[in-house]
Amino acid sequence: MTLMRTEINEIPDAVARLLSEGPGPIQTAVQRAKAADPRYFVSVARGSSDHAATYLKYASELLLRKPMASVGPSVRSIYGVELDCTATVGFSVSQSGMSPDIVRMTEAIGQGGAMTIAITNDAASDLARVATCVVPIFAGPERSVAATKTFVTSLVAGLWILAELADDKALIDSIHALPPLLAKAASCDWSAAAAAITGGSLFTVGRGPAWAISNEAALKFKDTCQIHAESYSAAEVMHGPMSIIEEGFPLIAFCAGDAAEPGLVDIVDALADKGAAAFVTSDLSQRSRHLPHVRTGHWLTDPITTIVSFYAMVETIALARGIDPDAPRHLKKVTETV
Amino acid sequence: MTLMRTEINEIPDAVARLLSEGPGPIQTAVQRAKAADPRYFVSVARGSSDHAATYLKYASELLLRKPMASVGPSVRSIYGVELDCTATVGFSVSQSGMSPDIVRMTEAIGQGGAMTIAITNDAASDLARVATCVVPIFAGPERSVAATKTFVTSLVAGLWILAELADDKALIDSIHALPPLLAKAASCDWSAAAAAITGGSLFTVGRGPAWAISNEAALKFKDTCQIHAESYSAAEVMHGPMSIIEEGFPLIAFCAGDAAEPGLVDIVDALADKGAAAFVTSDLSQRSRHLPHVRTGHWLTDPITTIVSFYAMVETIALARGIDPDAPRHLKKVTETV
Repeated sequence: MTLMRTEINEIPDAVARLLSEGPGPIQTAVQRAKAADPRYFVSVARGSSDHAATYLKYASELLLRKPMASVGPSVRSIYGVELDCTATVGFSVSQSGMSPDIVRMTEAIGQGGAMTIAITNDAASDLARVATCVVPIFAGPERSVAATKTFVTSLVAGLWILAELADDKALIDSIHALPPLLAKAASCDWSAAAAAITGGSLFTVGRGPAWAISNEAALKFKDTCQIHAESYSAAEVMHGPMSIIEEGFPLIAFCAGDAAEPGLVDIVDALADKGAAAFVTSDLSQRSRHLPHVRTGHWLTDPITTIVSFYAMVETIALARGIDPDAPRHLKKVTETV
Repeated sequence: MTLMRTEINEIPDAVARLLSEGPGPIQTAVQRAKAADPRYFVSVARGSSDHAATYLKYASELLLRKPMASVGPSVRSIYGVELDCTATVGFSVSQSGMSPDIVRMTEAIGQGGAMTIAITNDAASDLARVATCVVPIFAGPERSVAATKTFVTSLVAGLWILAELADDKALIDSIHALPPLLAKAASCDWSAAAAAITGGSLFTVGRGPAWAISNEAALKFKDTCQIHAESYSAAEVMHGPMSIIEEGFPLIAFCAGDAAEPGLVDIVDALADKGAAAFVTSDLSQRSRHLPHVRTGHWLTDPITTIVSFYAMVETIALARGIDPDAPRHLKKVTETV
């Protein structure tokens, strides 16, 4: 069994561990964030962690009505600018906590006035050291180069903080009910979609919080399967990118049981009409194929189950193509950029 | 001659017209923005206009030390949330000013407390109506489906506002010196890069403000040439996407004469070592090919000349592939999404 598969299977336990060991650091972060009384939020992250940050952006905007700005680490590490971050709370997400640009940018926004929260798998990392608060994700060692369990636990940790800030009991309850649903999601059968992915190029699509999941899926297609997948919001794909859709072009749409579902399904069906081999995690579509999915009963946690079902599929695609998903071409586990 | 080529050729005159007719609306917007005393900025845009907004994000962060958050129109149009935007200035960018989601989101952030600036080619559009101030880009009618002159004039209009807010005389002078440099940029010979683009997939790369230009280039490859190009920051491409690079995989890097140039060139050369057919608008690279480029003498206006050189090339690639760049598959001029 690949390390990637082993760690996908560990996701429910990793989330359960976060839920049982997390309340202390979560409450500390929540109290400090409340005290900062932010007008807006910022995020600092790269790669899969940046997709987790995009999910937190939608969650903060939809739960707390506060915009979140993703700030590029180069602003500090390359251009030497210290942003004015008074009246903000920063979320820095990094599994290793070691990429120098993420560490420096977190330190810089702290010096610029932000209260900063490090969401990381290493509470002793440089990132943890420079942040105001650390929220460990309790995922245990991640040996697969492709992040899976740390992506999901980063989503859950960040969402939990925001749910507590919003004092949203229904959402907090939904977060605590996740582990068995994640186990169920890992066994959804997406083999029909896997069979349709025969070429070297495809789109993933989402909207709102599920768009962050689509971003993560596209990256996994690239790094584990060497397939050029690109992620778009369902609206954005209409503004140009759909020109490359030809007969049989695969498209995988991530859909939650939220206000975006009907419109997202309409767009996916329209792209199927243009020839796309379209699959969607919704039962509402007319002309796209339905992917089995696990709904959580809360629109904001639905995207978390869908990425687990996706991970289970993408590992099989890599193996079917003769690629070891544990040893992606050109990559190592910790990428350090400046 | 295609409409696209005609309008690329019009870019220097369009910018000259903006520079001569723009001072009134620019000064009004600057005064209103100063009065708002923003703690941060937000942007609202889609497609090419969103790439212009990304450029403005870097410009605002590097010139004014204030973060800019890109807010997804779906927050208002789909999820019905009105963001709390006190103490912010919003930039909404749209050539037509007609996409309902952009109009609604601009109206919503205004109701949420933002002072809003519409950068648009139609001063009588719905977007202009709902914004606090309108800055027309004076590009004249754009008949090509693929935006070129309106993208460049949107960059210039937004940068001009930020330069005035920063009271940066050198930058304002550089903006006013652009028209003849843009004419020179339109005749740079990128045929060597065009010849290397033989497959269906490639990467464009940039860093900081030039990354926004890379984003725009990738979209143009898709909508005018049906080539799956994807844009990454030079740091981000190292965190996974480079796995799809194989021998001969084309890569076009947009580089300004700024603090990012040496590191960007190092990464592009490293990707050339992994097999990429790499081209870069810099003379510093050792193992990637140099693309002819026009430097403006100011690091922040350099990206504006490089997109003009790119546009001149991409139109020729479409024609060489037998595609009419004025009639992109599946698209029409004004995309209206909700």
